[in-house]
Formats: sequence, structure tokens, C-alpha cells
Amino acid sequence: MTVTPTAPLVGIVMGSRSDWETMQHAVQKLDALGVAHEVKVVSAHRTPDVLFEYAASAKARGLRAIIAGAGGAAHLPGMLAAKTAVPVLGVPVQSKALNGMDSLLSIVQMPAGVPVATFAIGNAGAANAGLFAAALLAADHPDIARALEAFRRHQTDDVVAHDDPRQ
Amino acid sequence: MTVTPTAPLVGIVMGSRSDWETMQHAVQKLDALGVAHEVKVVSAHRTPDVLFEYAASAKARGLRAIIAGAGGAAHLPGMLAAKTAVPVLGVPVQSKALNGMDSLLSIVQMPAGVPVATFAIGNAGAANAGLFAAALLAADHPDIARALEAFRRHQTDDVVAHDDPRQ
Amino acid sequence: MTVTPTAPLVGIVMGSRSDWETMQHAVQKLDALGVAHEVKVVSAHRTPDVLFEYAASAKARGLRAIIAGAGGAAHLPGMLAAKTAVPVLGVPVQSKALNGMDSLLSIVQMPAGVPVATFAIGNAGAANAGLFAAALLAADHPDIARALEAFRRHQTDDVVAHDDPRQ
Amino acid sequence: MTVTPTAPLVGIVMGSRSDWETMQHAVQKLDALGVAHEVKVVSAHRTPDVLFEYAASAKARGLRAIIAGAGGAAHLPGMLAAKTAVPVLGVPVQSKALNGMDSLLSIVQMPAGVPVATFAIGNAGAANAGLFAAALLAADHPDIARALEAFRRHQTDDVVAHDDPRQ
Amino acid sequence: MTVTPTAPLVGIVMGSRSDWETMQHAVQKLDALGVAHEVKVVSAHRTPDVLFEYAASAKARGLRAIIAGAGGAAHLPGMLAAKTAVPVLGVPVQSKALNGMDSLLSIVQMPAGVPVATFAIGNAGAANAGLFAAALLAADHPDIARALEAFRRHQTDDVVAHDDPRQ
Amino acid sequence: MTVTPTAPLVGIVMGSRSDWETMQHAVQKLDALGVAHEVKVVSAHRTPDVLFEYAASAKARGLRAIIAGAGGAAHLPGMLAAKTAVPVLGVPVQSKALNGMDSLLSIVQMPAGVPVATFAIGNAGAANAGLFAAALLAADHPDIARALEAFRRHQTDDVVAHDDPRQ
Amino acid sequence: MTVTPTAPLVGIVMGSRSDWETMQHAVQKLDALGVAHEVKVVSAHRTPDVLFEYAASAKARGLRAIIAGAGGAAHLPGMLAAKTAVPVLGVPVQSKALNGMDSLLSIVQMPAGVPVATFAIGNAGAANAGLFAAALLAADHPDIARALEAFRRHQTDDVVAHDDPRQ
Amino acid sequence: MTVTPTAPLVGIVMGSRSDWETMQHAVQKLDALGVAHEVKVVSAHRTPDVLFEYAASAKARGLRAIIAGAGGAAHLPGMLAAKTAVPVLGVPVQSKALNGMDSLLSIVQMPAGVPVATFAIGNAGAANAGLFAAALLAADHPDIARALEAFRRHQTDDVVAHDDPRQ
Repeated sequence: MTVTPTAPLVGIVMGSRSDWETMQHAVQKLDALGVAHEVKVVSAHRTPDVLFEYAASAKARGLRAIIAGAGGAAHLPGMLAAKTAVPVLGVPVQSKALNGMDSLLSIVQMPAGVPVATFAIGNAGAANAGLFAAALLAADHPDIARALEAFRRHQTDDVVAHDDPRQ
Repeated sequence: MTVTPTAPLVGIVMGSRSDWETMQHAVQKLDALGVAHEVKVVSAHRTPDVLFEYAASAKARGLRAIIAGAGGAAHLPGMLAAKTAVPVLGVPVQSKALNGMDSLLSIVQMPAGVPVATFAIGNAGAANAGLFAAALLAADHPDIARALEAFRRHQTDDVVAHDDPRQ
Repeated sequence: MTVTPTAPLVGIVMGSRSDWETMQHAVQKLDALGVAHEVKVVSAHRTPDVLFEYAASAKARGLRAIIAGAGGAAHLPGMLAAKTAVPVLGVPVQSKALNGMDSLLSIVQMPAGVPVATFAIGNAGAANAGLFAAALLAADHPDIARALEAFRRHQTDDVVAHDDPRQ
Repeated sequence: MTVTPTAPLVGIVMGSRSDWETMQHAVQKLDALGVAHEVKVVSAHRTPDVLFEYAASAKARGLRAIIAGAGGAAHLPGMLAAKTAVPVLGVPVQSKALNGMDSLLSIVQMPAGVPVATFAIGNAGAANAGLFAAALLAADHPDIARALEAFRRHQTDDVVAHDDPRQ
Repeated sequence: MTVTPTAPLVGIVMGSRSDWETMQHAVQKLDALGVAHEVKVVSAHRTPDVLFEYAASAKARGLRAIIAGAGGAAHLPGMLAAKTAVPVLGVPVQSKALNGMDSLLSIVQMPAGVPVATFAIGNAGAANAGLFAAALLAADHPDIARALEAFRRHQTDDVVAHDDPRQ
Repeated sequence: MTVTPTAPLVGIVMGSRSDWETMQHAVQKLDALGVAHEVKVVSAHRTPDVLFEYAASAKARGLRAIIAGAGGAAHLPGMLAAKTAVPVLGVPVQSKALNGMDSLLSIVQMPAGVPVATFAIGNAGAANAGLFAAALLAADHPDIARALEAFRRHQTDDVVAHDDPRQ
Repeated sequence: MTVTPTAPLVGIVMGSRSDWETMQHAVQKLDALGVAHEVKVVSAHRTPDVLFEYAASAKARGLRAIIAGAGGAAHLPGMLAAKTAVPVLGVPVQSKALNGMDSLLSIVQMPAGVPVATFAIGNAGAANAGLFAAALLAADHPDIARALEAFRRHQTDDVVAHDDPRQ
Repeated sequence: MTVTPTAPLVGIVMGSRSDWETMQHAVQKLDALGVAHEVKVVSAHRTPDVLFEYAASAKARGLRAIIAGAGGAAHLPGMLAAKTAVPVLGVPVQSKALNGMDSLLSIVQMPAGVPVATFAIGNAGAANAGLFAAALLAADHPDIARALEAFRRHQTDDVVAHDDPRQ
């Protein structure tokens, strides 16, 4: 497990090492916005006890949000949400046969009572989960709020500055 | 929890009381074939600890198969399979918005390493999970083998006897 | 616009009056957990200026989250998110022809840079958006944190207490 | 922004620079038919104010149609249509995970009251949006009418002239 | 065939009498906006010659747009477009088994060269096709332009005036 | 099994008695066109031996086409085609959960080597299978050719005669 | 147009030259079975008059079946069937964005009254359309019947002879 | 047919030699767990008689489970299940056009009365069918039970030992 120097506010977990290619986009956003975080592989199906322990200890360890990426029958985000009141952000990883439609439905179609905030399939979803986690923290972390504001302003300016697609 | 007189060989669990309408079709088949069973509501998301305990104790309690029905982001079958080596049979319950396509993909698209045997969406799937559980037991339960054989013969005879759809 | 006595922390908006049948489930959860909120119809397509103004003033008005429900080409959540850094929670309302699959994809498939936290299609999604909004606030609202904890404990107890689906 | 010498009659906008590969097919058709046009990147989510201004000023600037291409949660065409009575032609750009099915549904499933004329996913849709814009203008631009007629006749002749697929 | 007193500017055709329930929503919009129109059942598969003749004579008869509704393998809009340069607006009628997804794809996925402007499945799509036809005519019919403007203003005011969904 | 007086030229089989509601539309067309036929319930899964025998004897018994309707995992048409060179026409019966999309794919996606001619989901598909069977026979049955021609002419005339959907 | 020496019994048409890659599999089967045929590109949308003429003259020219392949909004098979009583066999060509699902639904979901016999998406469907055309002709062409029988026997023997996938 | 030295307990069949790439993952698991098995190509459509004979003799030959993989209109698992009471495990092979969604629905949507235990599309499904077959045998084969337990423990340990995706 890789941990940033200060106590992590956001945990990023994924069901398999191969999900890293997608989930690194969440990490990049948190890095860019200065949000302390930790990264770990936790498999709902192969390491259910680790998953339960991770979720059960999340609040006490100071996590304010958990970003969970998984593909196929993606049970990781939902089972984390079942074991903690810390907000869980789910990222459907693009699966081989069904292009992530299975991942998306497995994550987003949670029954009433246990929410998982779901983002887009693949890299865009991972990046947005990172941004959303930062937005949650912005309420009581002025530095993150400022970084997020700057990010959004920059992204707007960038589109405006390059609005001729032929150049 | 309703338990048949003799020690149950098959556990039938479902994520919500509303799944009973579907899952009773599994029970009916087990009843008809003389397979001792138990029935219980276990929610992956609302009672994750009960789920873990149920799965962890299944083998010791003598269960030879677990039939698990769930709808939407149907995590129950997969999480049971994550916690026990007892064969898990998954039944996708027909969901309101997506007609059970979400339930089906959440159950069947398990990653390599933790299998869930999946059956059709809805009543037919529940009935077939019951029949399949009986087939598993038939190898060392001659009475169940005989009952299953009789059931199949009867169902064939029934089609033959009423093969004019206009009568 | 209906406003709770104290300054609202959560805004609940929907694209059409007919979405109320779904979105009331978010309101019920916020009511039950004691989260001050406001409710309003805002149509992305018929009242785009109201939408922009609503989003642009959300932070200054003290909103900590916006729950937005819409069906079909559901642009409301995404356009709110484009205009405010306040977290936006999207609820796909079940549409007539495509059962909410169009609503879901229109809301969840946001491009990298502007996140919308998406929940399940229909009533369950609305209820969960309400619960998730409460979870966001729980970090600095101990009363909401306690109410949420009690809600989850009660919901677990309720499943355990009625775990025989035949009774 | 690239503008043709004479005042543009058609505006072609797209949500991202990467949509150019698709949207250039609309431009090629307008070029071939002698329809003055302008091309610009406008992101519904990253530059919502630019989008509103573009739509609000479209009529006064003499635009007779706006062709808007976007992928994923493709809100650009619908939000343009919300802000102007100038006809909006939507082109669903093929998305990575869902092959443009998300783009298509986000664009075509507009609620009653605010229409977006939608075309096929990808290059064919972009080309056809260009042809359709020309057809709209043909009513009072005889030169465009003639060019369009010639294009269609040529395309028919071309199929007839090469109707043996083996040669 | 029902024809409005003045020479029709818009032709509304549909593949079957049962499509009228949907297509009347296009007619209502044209009626409300004062757009002269005609209504006719034309089946691509059962009356292909009528379809060809209708399309071939459309321009000479003064039609400025054709709204075509059809369900299932909905060939009517595309075949009209194959036979006339008059803009064709396609409305996917909601089909029985596949809820109009077949109608939508059959209409919208036209190959490059022959465009059909496609609208939403069902009533909303029919209404929007009517509005879009009016928008096409607005350029040189100031009365239609004014009526359309008034319609849009009214529809915006109506949302604002009833923005509390609980009242 | 109901058999028409003269030796049947077309066999109509279906996987279950409940498919009759759909398949009677094939029978009605054959009746109307004077095509001798027989009707029988044959289940691929419950009476596989009957299915094999039916297919194996079809040619010798004078059948010129077999119309087979089935729903869900609809194996009946494909397995008949595997056992006979007599043309098999498959009708996907609308299934409960997936609206016949499962039936359609199970029937139409046959591998190269063993064709099944597939028709639309539900009643329309059954009717068209009947018409197609008649068209096959028309080549050497002038009376059927004449009846088919009359049917098509009548159906065209009927649309023309009632082409105002408001009357 | 390429024509086999003897008068063609089967016409193979396709909507675009690019469909040849798929449709050649139909031709290969007809070649192998000794069925005289002709091959031509006919576009429903770009050459509607050629399509009508082709269909209208098919019977008089001695065609006993028409195999029509098309992709996307695949109107070619259905419009041929609208204009001739000669059996039409439709082949959905795999489309770029939607993998042929659009082609399949556009071809198979014909309304009652005008049947198109539909085969699998892509090469397998084209091959099977060729085999099915041969099966139609087998009734009064003993040589084709024999060739077809030999083909099927050979294909069975081939599987049996190589039934170890590891060798 | 390749047969392991001791009498096979599990039969692995597939519809085509090209399915071997997928199905070898089932074989690898059985090899690793020491489960005696046999492997054979059996095509439902090209060798229906072989299929019937294989199923009919399975029990007498000592098979305790049959793993059947097929793609497209995948009838092999269902037809085996129709002819034997030995448990059948179905593996949907990923198809070219529809990515295995057709294979999945053709296998899983069996009618009540004849169950097929279905696993995920592609390699993961094949591997899991192998593991599930081993789990069935574990009840009366202590060595297989021990091997399975070791496999699961190892797979858990492996995730834990490599839980930093960046290393």
C-alpha cells in the first residue's frame, strides 16, 4: 500500500491490479489538487475479509471518501458502502466483453438504503471520482477548494484558448 | 428462518422480502423433490455481517448448495461465493426499471476465481436453481436422484400428452 | 419553491413536475434525517437561465449539495455541475420508452472534468441520493451523522427481524 | 475560430477538439456545397457560458442552423436548442466504452418542447447533418439547391456506375 | 387525406393508422403554431408506390418538410428521404416488443448521403418534429416565427410559475 | 396434433402451449392462403427426442417448410435445422423479462452451416413466417401464388382506402 | 453486374461496395452448391429507383430468391420485399458503431404483411442466406438438393474427424 | 478426444475448434486441481447426433458434470441438459459481432424444467466453470476439496501480497 506523507483523506481501492490503468486517473487528480490519499488493491471476491476490515476502519482512520473501481460483476463499491457510512464513489472499469456496461449496472443499481455515487465508465469516471472527492473535502479544506477552483478555471480557459479544432 | 424438519442440505437466501415471489419457485421444486432446505432473507447491503456469517458457517452446518436470489446490483450470490466453497447458485430477480438485465450481469459476470452458477431471470431461473441443486445432491442421495428422474419423465410426458395447442 | 424553516443545505431540483413522484423519495430521506432542504422544478431545456442562476448562486446560498433528477436526455444534473463546484448528485428518472436507460447514460457518462455523482434509476436512486447528501454533511453535522447511523442500524435490524419471507 | 469569407449561415460546434475527426465530415459537405460556415469548439460542461452566448447570439449573427457534435453525456446540442430557436442538428460522436449509444440517447431523447434533429452516430451522421443544413437553406438559396441536387445525382450515378462489387 | 385550407407546407405521414396516437402530437403543434399541413397514412412496405409518388411530388406540391412516423423496421422516413430533397423529419414510434429502440435505430442510422433528422421515441418526438418543422419555416414565415417564439416563452413561463412540485 | 385434411406442406411447432397466442398468427395466414399445415407443441428441452424425430421425418412426410416459434433460450428452430434440410422459419416469441430480445438472438445468431430464417419478435413475426412459407410454395403451387398475390393486393388497397388516420 | 453463365436463380444485392467482404460468403456457398446467381450493388437510399426496378422485374427474370445485405438503417431487404413476392433473405452487415445490432433490427423487425427472412449478423449470416436459398431451390432442383446434402454430410464429418481441439 | 489417464469425472465440450482458446481455461483449472476430465468438440448444429449420444451416455460413463462452451446461438449447453440429468455448466464464448451477449442469453435464459448453470462470458467464465465443477466433486473427493481450498487460499494471499498496484 502506497500512502502519501500526511494522513490520507481519500482511499482509492480497486478490485484487481489491472484496474490501475484506469484508477491512476483518480490518483492524478488528487495529486494535482493536493489531496492526501492512499492506494490499495482490495478484491471483493478474493479478499472479502480485507474489504470488510478496510471499510469498517475507514472512518476511524480519518478517510472522508473511498473511491472504488471494479469491472464486470463489480461488487467492491457496493460492499464497501454496506460496511461504512463514509461516502463511497464507484468507478466502473471498462470490461472486456461488455465494455463496462456490466460494471456500470453492478455499481449504480444499488437498492434504496445503501448509496454508491457512480461515475462514468473508464478513465473519465476515475478522474471525475477524484474531482468529486476533492469537492466533498472543499467545504472544510480551503486549500483544496482553491485548487479545485483553479483547476476548473484553467480547464475552461484551455477550451477557450484552443477553440479552433483545425489548429 | 423457516427450516425443514431434517437438517437442511440447501440454503435459499434472498436480498429482500419482495424477492420471495420469485424465490418460492426454487422452494417448490425442492419440496417436490424431497430436498431438505432452509429459507432466509439476507441482504448483502443491509446485513453484510449476517451474509458473511451465513456463508462462513454453511459448510459446517451441512449445506451442500446455496441458492441466492437478488435484483438490481445483485451482490448477494457473489459475496456468498467469496466466503464459502459451497456451490452458490445465483438467481437474477427481475428488476423494475431494467427487467433484470442489471441483476443478470451483476450475478453472472464474476471474475475468474470465484464462480457463481447463474440461472435465468425470474421464476424460471429460481425453479431451475432448485432443480440444479437437486441434481448436485443426486450423486449421493438416491432418493433425490429418483425423484428428479421422475420429475423429468413426467414433464416430458406432459408435453407429449398435450401437444395440440388448440385443445 | 418550498423551503424548510432553517437555511437549506441541500437543493432538490427536477426537470419536470412529473419527476416529483420519484424525487419525493429523496425528500423523505432528508426529512427523516433532519437535513434542511429546498425543492424546485428547474428545466434544463425549458428554463436554462433559471438553471444557470440556480447553480451559480448555490454556493453563496449555503447549499452543500444539489440533488437533480431528470429523465430521457437528462441534462439537468450535468449542466448544474458545469456551473457550480457544489457537489451534484444525479438521479435518472425512469423514462417511458427506454425505462431510464437513456436517463442513466445521459447523467453518468460525463466527460472528465465535470463530475456528477449518479445513483440508481428511479425511486431507489432518489432515496440513495438523499442518504448520500446526508453522508456528505455528516462530517461536520454531528446530528445528521447520528441520524444516519441510527437509520442504517434500524434498516439492518429490520431485515434481521423479518428474515423469514414466508411470515 | 475559423470563419469562411462570407457571413456564415451554419455554425459547427463540438464539445472537444477530439470530435474534429468526426465533425470534419460535416464541414466537408458544407464546403462542397458552397455553404458559408464557421467552426468552433464549445464545451457544454467546461465552457457553459460560451455555449449560452453562442446560442443566444446565433440568430442575430445570421446563423440559419447549428450543427453540434458531442460524445458520452452529450449535452451540447440540447443546451444550444434550449437557448435559441435556430434549428439545432445533433451529431452523436462515437464514444469509447459504449460506441456512441450514450451519445445518441443523450441527444435524441429530448423532452417535448425543445427539439434537436439527430443524425447517425459518427462520420455518417456528421456528413448528413451537413447535407441536411444545406437542404434547409436550399429553399431560399438557389445555388445551394442546385449544388445539393447535383450532389445527389452524382451519388446515384456513382453507385450505378460501380454496381459490380467484384470489380 | 385531411388537408388544411391553405396549401400545406408540411406533410405528416405515418406507416400505419395505429401510429396516429403518436403522430397527432406533431399535428397539434403545427395547428397551434398556424402551420398549414396535410396528414396521410403511407406504408413503406404495403404501399411502396404511394410512398415514392408522395416523395417525388413533395417539392412541386410546395411541401417544405415531411414528418414521417413509423415503428419497428421503420423504413418510411429513410425511403422518403431517398426520393426527395425536401427535409425529412423522422419520428420513431414506440414498438411493442422493443419499446421503439428498433424504430429509433432504423430511422437514425442512415448512411452518409441521405439524411433523416430524427427525434425522440414516441409522443415527445412527434411534438418536437412539429416544432422543428415550424422552426425551419420561421426563416421566411414571420407569423410562424412569432408563434414559435410565443410558444417557447409561454413554456418557460409555465415552468417558472409552477416550480413547486408539491403544489 | 391438429392436421388439415390434405397432407400438410408446412409444419408449425412451438416450444410451449403458451406460444400458441403468438403462433396462431402463422396458422391464420396459412389458413387464409389455403396452405395445408399441421400444428404441434414440441419442446427442445423437455421433448428433445420428439424434436429429433419430427425433424428427421419432415422431408419424408412431405413438409416443405417448418415454422418454429420459441421464447427465451429458444433452441427449437436451430435444433430442427440441425436435423433436417427442410427450410426452417424461426419466430422469436416475446419473453417476459427481456421482451424477446433473448429469443431473437438465440434464433437468428446461428453459426455458418445451419441456417434458420428468422422473423420479427411476436405476432408480426409469426404472421410473416406464414406468408414466407406460402411464398416458398408459390413457385410450384399456382393456387397459393394467386392467393398470396391477392392478399398483397388487398393489403395495399386497404391502406390506400383508409389513408386518413383521423377517420 | 456479374452474372453466371446460366440464367441466375438467385440475386445477391448489397447496399454498398463495402458490403462485399461480407456478402461474398453467400456467393461462395452458391458457387459451391452450383446455384446460378447474379451479384449487384443496389442502394436503397442512393438508388431507390434501381431497387424498385430490380425487385419489380425479379420474378419475370426468373429469380427464385433475393439475398440482400445491408448495414445500419438497412432498408434494402425490406424495400425489395415490399416490391416483389419473390422470397427475400436479409443479411445484417456488421456496422461500425453498433456492431450490426442496428442492421439486425432494421431488417428483422418487419411489420406483419411483408416478410424478410433474416440471418445472423455478418459472414455467418451471409453464408447461411446462401445455404437457405439453395434449400429453397432443392425442392425442384435435384442437383442442388444433392449438393446441399453432401455439404451438410461433409460438414458433420469434418467436426467428427477433428473433435480434439488440442490437435 | 483427449482423455486423462483415470476415468474422467468432467466432460468439457465446445461447439467449435475456435472455442478452445476460451475453454482451455476450464481445462487448466481442472488440471491444476487434479480433476480427471475429457475434452471434445461437439457441435449442436453440425453434429446433433453426437451431442445426443454424448449426453445420453454421460451418466453411465461416470461423468459428474459437463462443461459446455459455445458462442452466438449457443444451443450446446441447453441441448445437453435436455438429454441428461448430469449437471451442465454453460460457458458463453465471446462472439464477434455482439461480444457474447447473444451467447449469454442463449445459454442462461433456459425455460423452467431444464437448468444450465451459466458462467461469465469468455475466459473468466470458462475458468469458473472448471472451479465450480471441482466444487461439486469436492463433497465426496477429499483430495479435490483440499486442492480447491488451497487454490482459494493462495489466490487470497496473492492479492494481499501484491496490494500496491504501483509496484
